[in-house]
Amino acid sequence: MKFSPLFWPVELKGNTIHILDETLLPQKVKYIKARNEKQALRAIKEMKTRAVGQVILVFCIFLLVLKKNRKKKDIKPVLFKLADTINTVRPTLSFKYLTDMVLGWLIAGAPLEKSILGFLEVLKNKRIEQAESASAFLADGDAILTHCNISGQMPLIGQFARKQKKNVKFFVTETRPYLQGSRLTAWELQETGLDVTIISDNMVAEVMKEGKISKVIVGADNLAQNGDIANKIGTYQIAILARHFNLPFYVLCPPQSAAKTGKDIAIEIRPDKELLEYQGLKLAPKGVKGYYPAFDVTPDNLITQHIYLEIGGKI
Amino acid sequence: MKFSPLFWPVELKGNTIHILDETLLPQKVKYIKARNEKQALRAIKEMKTRAVGQVILVFCIFLLVLKKNRKKKDIKPVLFKLADTINTVRPTLSFKYLTDMVLGWLIAGAPLEKSILGFLEVLKNKRIEQAESASAFLADGDAILTHCNISGQMPLIGQFARKQKKNVKFFVTETRPYLQGSRLTAWELQETGLDVTIISDNMVAEVMKEGKISKVIVGADNLAQNGDIANKIGTYQIAILARHFNLPFYVLCPPQSAAKTGKDIAIEIRPDKELLEYQGLKLAPKGVKGYYPAFDVTPDNLITQHIYLEIGGKI
Repeated sequence: MKFSPLFWPVELKGNTIHILDETLLPQKVKYIKARNEKQALRAIKEMKTRAVGQVILVFCIFLLVLKKNRKKKDIKPVLFKLADTINTVRPTLSFKYLTDMVLGWLIAGAPLEKSILGFLEVLKNKRIEQAESASAFLADGDAILTHCNISGQMPLIGQFARKQKKNVKFFVTETRPYLQGSRLTAWELQETGLDVTIISDNMVAEVMKEGKISKVIVGADNLAQNGDIANKIGTYQIAILARHFNLPFYVLCPPQSAAKTGKDIAIEIRPDKELLEYQGLKLAPKGVKGYYPAFDVTPDNLITQHIYLEIGGKI
Repeated sequence: MKFSPLFWPVELKGNTIHILDETLLPQKVKYIKARNEKQALRAIKEMKTRAVGQVILVFCIFLLVLKKNRKKKDIKPVLFKLADTINTVRPTLSFKYLTDMVLGWLIAGAPLEKSILGFLEVLKNKRIEQAESASAFLADGDAILTHCNISGQMPLIGQFARKQKKNVKFFVTETRPYLQGSRLTAWELQETGLDVTIISDNMVAEVMKEGKISKVIVGADNLAQNGDIANKIGTYQIAILARHFNLPFYVLCPPQSAAKTGKDIAIEIRPDKELLEYQGLKLAPKGVKGYYPAFDVTPDNLITQHIYLEIGGKI
């Protein structure tokens, strides 16, 4: 099994967190070196890392702060404050359930560093299992449409399918404005030797109508308790289109968040500059405004099958 | 009434056709000077001009060739050959009904130059009337979503609405990969003092769900006899989404083509390079392929109201 660098894009080495800079992909595979929590959180805010990278990073920040405060008598106030800071970085992503997990171990008196490292190990293995579960839904000859990027899980799905002697190919929406689809997913699929074709976000209905797609698989940034999910902007309309064309729509889910339904998930509105410019190139006339909701909610009733991340427990 | 340069982007001056280079907008308002039919047709192929610009250009090419061949005894073979060449430039656009019109006048022995100039004058006026008809469907407070660019008619619709004391605003999809929405429509609406917001093509369902859109108005490149239309890629899925959210979907139509239904309209597949690069900037990893159908067909049953171009006769 070949792993994409996106599958596990963050790591603590000594007193430095190495963060894969996803904004430079696919041209450069380069790691940001964060030496403190401030630098690390900036990488989240600026979307240098995203999806599972952010989850791993949250834990690495705790590990780093623990290391740096080894001699401190009472670490609790430091960690509680840190949790508060982390929780507010990006509204749609439920970092709180991650920080609550750490604080829970802290309160319970568990060995913190060991608990975190153990959790990360479980997360890694469960993500591989989740990709394998997804591959079981595929049939020989399938053409899978995906959107955005599921942090290295799509190449695993493709490789599991190959092991099962199923020949599958992939269509990827470019996923404006950040182009995770072309820059990340198409790249990691190609690097794994899988067949991938890029389309722009407005071609979904046409390729579905042409019979080029048999299934849709996307990831999710937030799973509410009623089965609604929040994922990268554009997911919702693909789900509506999949229903229109009677195509199954599968979601690789993160652990359930505290949100009861999708209505409880705040949608992050990002600066319109990120939509109106690309790598310094102006894409729109001066002075025109844009609107950039970074996520949308796909209701449970449009989802054919949730593929859960079976970490167990109430996280 | 203020006219966008896009409303009438092509003109014959002396022996030179001036063609607004839409690829340079909104940064530069610059005209290509075509001195023969070859240069003019290249502007169509490279999408330097599009939509109504191509229609006007076809007639201007005939005017230019007529001028240059004034001394020729039998102009017929030249014009028949020219018509053949023009007909094959872009598959989805029905240039044939334009060239047939000219050949029809020729065969009927009508004064060719006068007929063409007369037709262009009618076309100009009817397009203004069409925009006025569209404005009649709007209500005070409407927020109109549009896609791609309808060659200067959207600013007219906005101005007619303003005259009717209706306050309307606009949302424009950026329209990848050519960005006609941000570069052209947002620009001409802003220049006319109308309220416009850019979204990316994957935000349509979300802004509709948020209640930000009340109506959709798009143009069309081809109107089949059963009411199906072909328009810029992405139109079809917006029509499906409009139906999902119970929003009216209006189409400003060109004259009917020879296509019986949408199935008779060939969809132009353009080079994937245009999707994978933007102004020399690589948007995708080396070697990954793309798929770029430039148009799609929206079936009649998803269209709330066709707004016809009332040129009369069988064109």
